[in-house]
Amino acid sequence: MRKPYQPAASDIRLSAVLYALSDPRRLQIVQSLKDQAEQNCAVYHELMPKSTLTHHLKVLREAGVAKVRIEGTQHFYSLRTEELDQLFPGLMSAVLNAPPDLIE
Amino acid sequence: MRKPYQPAASDIRLSAVLYALSDPRRLQIVQSLKDQAEQNCAVYHELMPKSTLTHHLKVLREAGVAKVRIEGTQHFYSLRTEELDQLFPGLMSAVLNAPPDLIE
Repeated sequence: MRKPYQPAASDIRLSAVLYALSDPRRLQIVQSLKDQAEQNCAVYHELMPKSTLTHHLKVLREAGVAKVRIEGTQHFYSLRTEELDQLFPGLMSAVLNAPPDLIE
Repeated sequence: MRKPYQPAASDIRLSAVLYALSDPRRLQIVQSLKDQAEQNCAVYHELMPKSTLTHHLKVLREAGVAKVRIEGTQHFYSLRTEELDQLFPGLMSAVLNAPPDLIE
């Protein structure tokens, strides 16, 4: 299986990160990953159809916001908070701590 | 002349703010407003065609990132940093201080 693309830290760009974070569903996923080391993406199947989820996780991954670890048929997602904090200090903390009623 | 729409602080939402900030041209405009009390939007005519500029300023204004003051035929833009800092502490500072080479 081909490893899904995820950019090196040096290839992460602010416009792509902000775009990835600008969708309410993706913000919901990102906030739910806040306190998790990693999350099996199956937990989101209740929140949205699988094809929608696959699309949103791809946008987050390709922008460098999230990364995936594959174990057999399972995908475990986590945030790239440490790298993002180095590139854009304060950004992820602002986004992760935004009150849910101010998201959409 | 009808006053252009700009949301009340209580109507500003994170997803719209992040979307408005996710375009490299709009990030360029926003960063250029960083140290200005306000800016006559005519200064951006060198950077991009007028119709493009009008569109980008509208997106920034309608998301609550920037506001406009109209004096005769002139439009003066400024950032709504204070209100955004209250809603999403740290967000604007992270965006305004991002190195230009990490934007796009």
